Amino acid sequence: MTAISPHASVSAPASEARTSGRVFNFGAGPSTLPDDVLKQIQQDVWNYRGSGIGILELSHRGKEYDKLIAEIDDDLRAIGNIPRNYKILFMTGGATSQNYIVPANLLPPGGTADHIVTGYWAENTLADARQYASCSNTKATIHVAATSADKNHSYIPADADIKYSASQGRGGPTYVHITSNNTIYGTQWHRLPKIPEGAFLVSDACSDFFWKPIDVTKFGVIYGGAQKNMGTTGCSFIVIRDDILERANKDIPRMLQYGVFSREESRPNTPPTFAIYTVGLMAKWIKAQGGLAALEKLNREKAGLVYAALDANTGFYTPHVRKEDRSFMNITFACKGVGAKEGGGGMEMDARFLADAGKAGLAVLKGHRAMGHGGGMRASLYNAMPLAGAQALAEFIGDFAKKNG
Amino acid sequence: MTAISPHASVSAPASEARTSGRVFNFGAGPSTLPDDVLKQIQQDVWNYRGSGIGILELSHRGKEYDKLIAEIDDDLRAIGNIPRNYKILFMTGGATSQNYIVPANLLPPGGTADHIVTGYWAENTLADARQYASCSNTKATIHVAATSADKNHSYIPADADIKYSASQGRGGPTYVHITSNNTIYGTQWHRLPKIPEGAFLVSDACSDFFWKPIDVTKFGVIYGGAQKNMGTTGCSFIVIRDDILERANKDIPRMLQYGVFSREESRPNTPPTFAIYTVGLMAKWIKAQGGLAALEKLNREKAGLVYAALDANTGFYTPHVRKEDRSFMNITFACKGVGAKEGGGGMEMDARFLADAGKAGLAVLKGHRAMGHGGGMRASLYNAMPLAGAQALAEFIGDFAKKNG
Repeated sequence: MTAISPHASVSAPASEARTSGRVFNFGAGPSTLPDDVLKQIQQDVWNYRGSGIGILELSHRGKEYDKLIAEIDDDLRAIGNIPRNYKILFMTGGATSQNYIVPANLLPPGGTADHIVTGYWAENTLADARQYASCSNTKATIHVAATSADKNHSYIPADADIKYSASQGRGGPTYVHITSNNTIYGTQWHRLPKIPEGAFLVSDACSDFFWKPIDVTKFGVIYGGAQKNMGTTGCSFIVIRDDILERANKDIPRMLQYGVFSREESRPNTPPTFAIYTVGLMAKWIKAQGGLAALEKLNREKAGLVYAALDANTGFYTPHVRKEDRSFMNITFACKGVGAKEGGGGMEMDARFLADAGKAGLAVLKGHRAMGHGGGMRASLYNAMPLAGAQALAEFIGDFAKKNG
Repeated sequence: MTAISPHASVSAPASEARTSGRVFNFGAGPSTLPDDVLKQIQQDVWNYRGSGIGILELSHRGKEYDKLIAEIDDDLRAIGNIPRNYKILFMTGGATSQNYIVPANLLPPGGTADHIVTGYWAENTLADARQYASCSNTKATIHVAATSADKNHSYIPADADIKYSASQGRGGPTYVHITSNNTIYGTQWHRLPKIPEGAFLVSDACSDFFWKPIDVTKFGVIYGGAQKNMGTTGCSFIVIRDDILERANKDIPRMLQYGVFSREESRPNTPPTFAIYTVGLMAKWIKAQGGLAALEKLNREKAGLVYAALDANTGFYTPHVRKEDRSFMNITFACKGVGAKEGGGGMEMDARFLADAGKAGLAVLKGHRAMGHGGGMRASLYNAMPLAGAQALAEFIGDFAKKNG
């Protein structure tokens, strides 16, 4: 490894990312970051705010870091309208580790959690919660209140189809768990479920938190990894209401207790400082875009362009999701197959789509294997995807259908 | 936040870090990184190996990342002489989370772990292991085989002073836990303890792994955070022998199982990709320095300079640690006090030392409060601290004593 010269391409504007050596990255996470954020990181890695020390090397007990985490907390509250009676925690292990950390902290002995299962990660959450219940002392029950598995997770269940545990003659749930956006199948909750009185809502918002303004007070807990809408890998966020935090279990390992992370400002030991700092950069970037209201408008415009291109070519493409449940973050579709059989024309056309898109600088569009039929395509349009990326993709979708239809 | 211009100072050679806007950072972790590593990061954040995607945005399921983690595994094995019957895992939560993850994975029901307690983090490890034993189903016993607490952790216990559980009429331990380097007090194991037959050695090597060549086969498990000798915050490494891995507990949450991390190449979910990548850069940097043998020579020279400066001024400074147990990573000392009482002359002189050192570009030298007497000073000389930093500090130590003695 040798020293590098300062890269010449750094000054390209975000809307022309492709002229700067960078492609449009439609990956589902880790996902693309704004050019301005990357440039700030390049500077701070060398020397953070004139300290003479880079951000990667900065003590988590020093005054610069004290200031940094106070700013991040303020900025997240400001842009997300997060009330003072909610705490924002940063942990590690991703949203997947919350699969057991949530019940470990929040389920009382013999308690019940109701899960609404709307996709791949929701299935994992369910399985991990059940595994936790079986290997711990909690004697907890994990109940499936509804699932969209019957139609390959292509829709969000209606309230009428949700059967909470209380309605089945058992004790009501402590909480109801939803996955607000289903990254792999491409559905998204555009309403919240009606939940039993006394229960609170826990939302895995890994792939759509901070995509638009939301009413945080409708939730007891919101959690996710930062690497989609809000930064990079290595830290997970937990937004949790004070009264739930106060009741959280203390009879679990110290490093898993929400209460410990709250009291110790998410640094009971060396935290993932760089990942947390990157969340802070994203918060400042969102502020600079005009906040979440402006971002929602942009995100709707981006997804609108891509869905419109698919809907204009329904003879060629099959979108996976029922229209009213479509995600604004992850758009899933496939080319229609000749006979639509496994390994048939659709999959070959999908492969051609992905290859041609790659050549056009539209990258990481392959869908997830769990979708079946090879996975098809998935375009993730998180906060940091510029409008130009969505425009380029929409145009490509139309052109490809014309050329191959 | 506005776009920045490429930093002008990047091309300064490592040995002149202070002329580049950077200080010598003696922090105990997160610690200083080599200039070349930082420059590589600046490049890769924008565009990783010509992929058009930055390292922070790179999919953990893509071919670039496949290649990256294979390279890291190869490089770590090569420089560390890690045999094929050991696996290298990356997890999150730091070494502190291993305090419960180690017994959760490795202690059979009713099993015993023997701890040799040689410092602040070793005390924490003991407390967390006991807390885990009390809040889990394991009915495990955590036994203190020896402690250096009687002399404020200023020495490493002799074999004759270690009383294993087997010798007290109980079942022998499954493993013996040591902390190979004590970051806060500044002691280091320069031999390994003789352990009972049938037991294996578990070493928290958070602050001295990869400081020199070691015989990995003497250990069952070696673990630590990467942010001292091997990178930045956000990932912990676990080097574990295959037979121990195979016996590891499966009746704990999936995301805590060593077996899962081994089978799934440390990516059962989105891993801390950037932190792991930085470990890889450190491995390549160590290779470029001539490997661990060359690094040991350099590390001995660096620590030798600083200890020599202290020993030349014994009328002015008190090193904390018994000479034969001195750490090559963390050097702890204080100015002699007038009467040596709490709040006395020593502490005032320490404060002056720290202030003057800071002005001279020698940063983050404050010792830990747990040391007592205000904490005194601690100079951390991890792998990435250049010789010039140790030279500058040694010179300052002499000059300061002359000026204030």
